[in-house]
Formats: sequence, C-alpha cells, structure tokens
Amino acid sequence: MKKFLAEFIGTFWLVLGGCGSAVLAAAFPDLGIGLLGVALAFGLTVLTIAYGLGHISGAHLNPAVSIGLWAGGRFSARELLPYITAQVLGGIMAAAVLYVIATGNGSETGSFAANGYGAHSPGGYDMYAAFLTETVMTFMFLIVIIGATDQRAPQGFAGLAIGLALTLIHLISIPVTNTSVNPARSISQALFAEGHWALQQLWLFILAPVTGAVLAGIVSRVFCEDNKTN
Amino acid sequence: MKKFLAEFIGTFWLVLGGCGSAVLAAAFPDLGIGLLGVALAFGLTVLTIAYGLGHISGAHLNPAVSIGLWAGGRFSARELLPYITAQVLGGIMAAAVLYVIATGNGSETGSFAANGYGAHSPGGYDMYAAFLTETVMTFMFLIVIIGATDQRAPQGFAGLAIGLALTLIHLISIPVTNTSVNPARSISQALFAEGHWALQQLWLFILAPVTGAVLAGIVSRVFCEDNKTN
Amino acid sequence: MKKFLAEFIGTFWLVLGGCGSAVLAAAFPDLGIGLLGVALAFGLTVLTIAYGLGHISGAHLNPAVSIGLWAGGRFSARELLPYITAQVLGGIMAAAVLYVIATGNGSETGSFAANGYGAHSPGGYDMYAAFLTETVMTFMFLIVIIGATDQRAPQGFAGLAIGLALTLIHLISIPVTNTSVNPARSISQALFAEGHWALQQLWLFILAPVTGAVLAGIVSRVFCEDNKTN
Amino acid sequence: MKKFLAEFIGTFWLVLGGCGSAVLAAAFPDLGIGLLGVALAFGLTVLTIAYGLGHISGAHLNPAVSIGLWAGGRFSARELLPYITAQVLGGIMAAAVLYVIATGNGSETGSFAANGYGAHSPGGYDMYAAFLTETVMTFMFLIVIIGATDQRAPQGFAGLAIGLALTLIHLISIPVTNTSVNPARSISQALFAEGHWALQQLWLFILAPVTGAVLAGIVSRVFCEDNKTN
Repeated sequence: MKKFLAEFIGTFWLVLGGCGSAVLAAAFPDLGIGLLGVALAFGLTVLTIAYGLGHISGAHLNPAVSIGLWAGGRFSARELLPYITAQVLGGIMAAAVLYVIATGNGSETGSFAANGYGAHSPGGYDMYAAFLTETVMTFMFLIVIIGATDQRAPQGFAGLAIGLALTLIHLISIPVTNTSVNPARSISQALFAEGHWALQQLWLFILAPVTGAVLAGIVSRVFCEDNKTN
Repeated sequence: MKKFLAEFIGTFWLVLGGCGSAVLAAAFPDLGIGLLGVALAFGLTVLTIAYGLGHISGAHLNPAVSIGLWAGGRFSARELLPYITAQVLGGIMAAAVLYVIATGNGSETGSFAANGYGAHSPGGYDMYAAFLTETVMTFMFLIVIIGATDQRAPQGFAGLAIGLALTLIHLISIPVTNTSVNPARSISQALFAEGHWALQQLWLFILAPVTGAVLAGIVSRVFCEDNKTN
Repeated sequence: MKKFLAEFIGTFWLVLGGCGSAVLAAAFPDLGIGLLGVALAFGLTVLTIAYGLGHISGAHLNPAVSIGLWAGGRFSARELLPYITAQVLGGIMAAAVLYVIATGNGSETGSFAANGYGAHSPGGYDMYAAFLTETVMTFMFLIVIIGATDQRAPQGFAGLAIGLALTLIHLISIPVTNTSVNPARSISQALFAEGHWALQQLWLFILAPVTGAVLAGIVSRVFCEDNKTN
Repeated sequence: MKKFLAEFIGTFWLVLGGCGSAVLAAAFPDLGIGLLGVALAFGLTVLTIAYGLGHISGAHLNPAVSIGLWAGGRFSARELLPYITAQVLGGIMAAAVLYVIATGNGSETGSFAANGYGAHSPGGYDMYAAFLTETVMTFMFLIVIIGATDQRAPQGFAGLAIGLALTLIHLISIPVTNTSVNPARSISQALFAEGHWALQQLWLFILAPVTGAVLAGIVSRVFCEDNKTN
C-alpha cells in the first residue's frame, strides 16, 4: 500500500513535471525553457522522487522500468501489476491536473505533450526511426538503472545518474518522438490530446519501450557479480 | 540565535539569487538566461545553502517549509515563529539590496519579481489555476523535502534533491504565477513592486503554499518508518 | 569480455548521446537545445555510464583516456588494445544507428557531427588553434579524471566530476573544433560525414588528444601519494 | 610545491574555462551558450578541480577565497602569498592561451572577458551597484565555501556546492560587472583587453571581492562548533 502510493505520487510528479514544463513553459514567448528545459524537467522529476520516495518503492515511475527490472532478475513478477496500475493512474491524475491548469488562461491544449511518429513526430521522423529510437533509448535507460543500483556501484548516486539519464534521453530524442521511454507517460497524454491520433499511435510507445527494457534486462545479466568470467 | 542568523542569511540568498537572476539577467538582450536560468538560480540558492548552512538551521528558507515540516512531525511548534521571522526579514533585506543594484543603471524596477495571477500572471492564468498550481507545487516540494531527509534515504543527497526540486518547480510554473511556493519570497517582492496589485494578490501566495505544505506533512506520515503496514 | 562489452556499450552511448543530440536536437527550430544542450548531453553520457558500468570497466569510453591513464601508471599496457578496439567499434555502431534515425525524416546528414579545423571549424579556427585547443582540453580532462579517481579524493563523486568536465570542455570548445578530445568519437563521425574532409582531418583529432592525455599522465605523477615532497 | 602547482593548474582552468566559454561560445551565432552557459562553465571549472585537485591544495583558485578562509581562521597567513602568486600566474597563463586560440580565426579579442562598471558594465550599472554586487556575491560565496567544508556538513559534497555557488553568482551578476568575485580572474583579463579601461577599473575587482570575503570570514566564526550558544 505504501509502495502503491509512492509509485502513484512519483509518476504523478513525472508526468506533471515533465509534460507540464513542456506544455506550459517550453515555448513561453522570448524566455521559454525550450527542449533543454523540458529535458531537465523530466530528469529532475525522477531525481527528486528517487531521493524522496526511492526508499519506499524504488521509484520506478514507469512500467517499462518495472518490466525491465523483472527481466533482469531484480523485481518480482508478483508486484508488476500493482506497480504498473499505480504508475498509469498517477500519470492520468497528473494529466487531469495539467489539463485544468493549462486551460486556465483560456488556451486550448492541442496535442498536449503526446508522443507521436510520422506526421505527429515533432521533426517528422517515420515509424521505423521512432521505434528504433524508443527501443534504444529505453535499452540504455535500463542499462544505467540496473548498473547504478548494483551493489558495486558508488552508493547513493543512483538517483542522480538515473534522473540525469532521463534528461540525456530527452536531449537526444524529443525531436523524433517527443520522447516517451515510458508507457504511463504516453497513455496519460494520449487520453487528453485532441483527436484520436495519439491513441492510435500509442501501441508503439508501449511496445518499443518494453522491448528495449527487456533486452537491457537480459544483457545486464552478463554484468552480474556471480558471472565471474572476467 | 545561530539558527536565526542562518535562516536570515539563507533566505536573503534565496531571494537575492532567485529574484535577482530574474530581474537582472533573465531578459538580458540576446544572451539572457531566460526562465531556464532563473529556475536553475532558485534551485541553486537552496542547494548551496543546504550544504553551507544546513547543519546549523536545517536550511528551511521558507515559512511553508517550516510549517509543512511541523505538520509532518519533524519540527517543533515553538521554533516556528522565530524561523518565519528570520525568513521574512532575510527576504526583505534581499529585496532592498536587489532594489539598489537593479536601479543602478537608471532603470525602473516595474513589477520586480512579484508573484501574480490573472492579469499579473506571466501567461495570463486565472486565480483558480494559480491556486491549484501553488498548492500542488508546494505539496510535491514538501514530499521531496520530507522524504529526502528521511533516515532511510541516501545520506548527504538531500540538499541536492531539494534544491533541484525547486528548480523543477520553476521550470513548470513560472508562466502561471512567476512561481512562489514560498511566502517569504512573495512578501519581499510585493513590498517593492510598483502599484498595489502584488500586495492585494499576496494572500494567495501565503494561503496556497501553506495549504500544500500542510497536506504534504499529513500524507508523508503514511511513509513513516514505524508505520509498518507494508 | 565483460569489460569489453562495457566499453563497447559505454562508447556507443557517448557517441549516440553526444553526437545524436547535436545532429537531432541542437538546431531544432525555435526550441533547439543549442551548444549548451549538446555540451550537457556529452557530459551526461559519461556521467551515466560512469555510475552504470564504471564498476565493470572503469568507463574510459575514449582511447585518449585509456592511454592517459596508462601514461599516469593507472592502467596496464596489456589492456590498451582491447579497450581501444571496443571503444572504436562502439562509436561506429552508434554512428550507424544515428545515421538510420537521422535520415528517418528524409533529411540528409551532411557533415554529421564530425570534428574539423580551418574551413570545417564551426567558428573558422585554424589548424594551430585547433591543435592547441584539443591538446589543452584533453590535458585538463585527464587531470580531472586522474585526480578525481585518486583514493584521497571524495569517494563516489568521480563520475560526477568527470562527466561534468566533459560538459565544460564542450562549453568552451565546440566553436573551435566541434570538440573531440576523443579519437573514437571523431573516427565514428568521420566515417559517416559527407565528403572526404573529415577523414583527411582525422589525424589531428587522434594526435592532439593523445598528446594532451600523455602529458597529463606524466604531470599527474607529481601529485602521487608517495611523492611526499610537500 | 605540489600545492603551488595545483593552484596554478586549477586557476588556469577556471580562467580558461570560464572566460574561454564567454569569449568563444557565448555569442556563437544561433546556437550560442549565452550567459547561462558561461555561468555553468565557471561553476564547473571549480567543481571539477575541487574533485580533481582539492585533496592537494584545497582548490581555492581565487585570492579572495584564500584571504576569506584566512579571515575565518581556516588558512594560515604563511601560505597566502604563494597561493595568491600561483593563482595570478595560472590566470595569466590561461589568458595567454585563450588569446592564441581566440585570435586563431582572425578575429580581434576586443574587451576579452574583462570585468567593468559604468560604461563597461554589460548592462550599464554604475560603480556603486558594481561594488555592492561584487561585495555581496563574494560574501555569499565564502559563506557557502566555509560552511560546506565544515566537518558537520555532509562529507564529499563541498565541491558540488561550491562550484554551483559560482554558477549561481554568475547567473545573477554577469549583467552588472561581467562577474568577478575573483581578483586573479580580473587581473588576467585586464592584461589582454584592448585599451586601458580594464586596468583602470581593476581596483574595484580586487577591493570588493576581498572586502566581501573578509566579512564572510568574520561572520562565519559565529557558526563555529565551539561557539555553543545555541
């Protein structure tokens, strides 16, 4: 129950902070924070929750992370469903709050901060580029997560490394897909975006992150401590 | 007495650094730091004082933080008044110094870095959006503060997480209210802003942050160590 | 074998993240991350891998770093060749992935993120300025690397200091050479850049970084613990 | 001798990195790093050297810091002269290297990154605003330095807090004086700036930082451990 609440609040913060900075502040006239500011905001949601609630639930905040940790032998299958439920609900709660705030100056929300490819990619990248990008980015995200929480890594720094990894991923890939690497984030925005395109493209932002995360879980087993071939 | 001085100096730095960067550098022609730079500056005031004076007073630097920590059972009621007094005085001192510097090139200060809603919101957001934003942002700020200073969290990293949480909050919400989450910061600027609007709107930037902070103090009790239901 | 894989994945991430952010996001219309974002991205690749895989291979991710550590008496000559091989292959793999993504919106890649001097320097700096810049920057990079991993330095912070040193180096020198300080990064981009100029100028981005790194390895011996003349 | 070399190399890096980023990259067309990037660069020079060479010399890199630490009872008078000498020489060496690089594309250096007030303040701030700014900024810099290196502060984080304090100071005050808080940095640039104005205004960038630092050294004694009145 504590863990469920922590994942709910944490994913709420990830979506409100990351997508909120994108919707409210990225293109603010003259002084806007741009993609750099949005990238920083996404990373800082994870960094702050990792230190604030990581000791409660591990601060996954992302179904792909929970699944990747399970694939890497770090998380029990039994907890997958409650974690993912909390994450998706927290994300939706954040999107609802963001909707109320964002429309509070009379503006329409348009595409919100939904993820997309093809005509809905910020830079016009096609489905194949989008799938490759989301898969590789989530793969590397999990490599950092699994490695930085290894007992041999410097203790205490995981939240810093993992949060800034998410910043880095956004610095690279916002132009391609608006960056997901997190199905809970994508679901929450697709529900509030105008039109049906975001829901129609949602499959990619579930399938690609999960694929990348599972692959990373498997590869990371090579680096396990008991695997002493080097 | 030491604690009073530490909170005075610390809140002086928060207001001088955060509001100072906004007034002096945000819109500097061509090379200005923008909202991203201001967000970073606010966070770094807290980060630097957390490591510089946190061992003296805990580096609250914010009446809402002191009240939220009290609501969470982490701070004694007896110390609330001296802490809040030091914070408000430190903020006013900073605003005075900033006034002298900012007018040192002959420019008028206009609205300084005052917080506002409706016509005085940077992005034209109404009172309801402003109240919701300030409440939720302060709620999450306190969740991070209370969690990151928990004995089960990685030791030493609280200053980093808390400072960067304030940066994140600004990355999201400057367009809505110019971001307060701190009554001392709002009071100090309202006193120096031109006209009476900032003082008239000041109630929101006291009430909403305190509401969010108290709620977070209550919710965070769920995560307490002795609350071992999970 | 584990180490080889770690250096391969790590250098893959350095090139994909650093050069990828430059190619995909730096000049994105209106909201692009600029040179500041690219500088941050390069540093964060190293920071995240240092915490994620540093306990496996040391996270060199750069032939000049491996050679500089060898010159400083910190790395065995026997491991130089496999490390450098893994780094160069990882960099090329990243360039290939980046090529697929970057051309996924129909655009041509042009000069990719290749390093250059003279007519191919972003700011038109000549060969001498380029050589001096790359040598000095790599020299200081190794001074930080060797010092921050010294047993007398604060434990655990090396990844932070080294990653942010690479960010700093890019903040200074992108206009001069597009910043290399890493032969694996330069080789990978030269192979995919249009025309032959990048391959023709490649010698400088191997020779200068290695020169700077070896000099730093030698100078850093002055600071050794057993060198107790002060 | 080791300490002298460490302060020389460290201040070399502070000036080359901070002023170099300003001269080479701040106003790079379209993608320039702006004042935010310069602020980050200055801070990262200190952060990286604090972890890289702090265990050798303490990484002062600034005559005002050495004098402030002396005023606070943390540094011996006997070492002041060699430290300051190394700092000034390292700064000049950096300015010379920067001069060679910066003129390597045929451009003239103009005012380099010199500090100034009145007509030479980037934002046209007068001498009084400049003096107040430099004094207060250096005062707060030393408060953070002395506090973060206190034995009661979290161990290992001082380099992070102090480096980012310098970033913060630049985020606030570049428009006022181009930010000094460091006589070695000001001297080095004044020697290479065109015309005599920078040398004529140099007194302020020695006197104000030293004044602020000495005041902070005195105030910080209130917070000493043996001063147990609270």
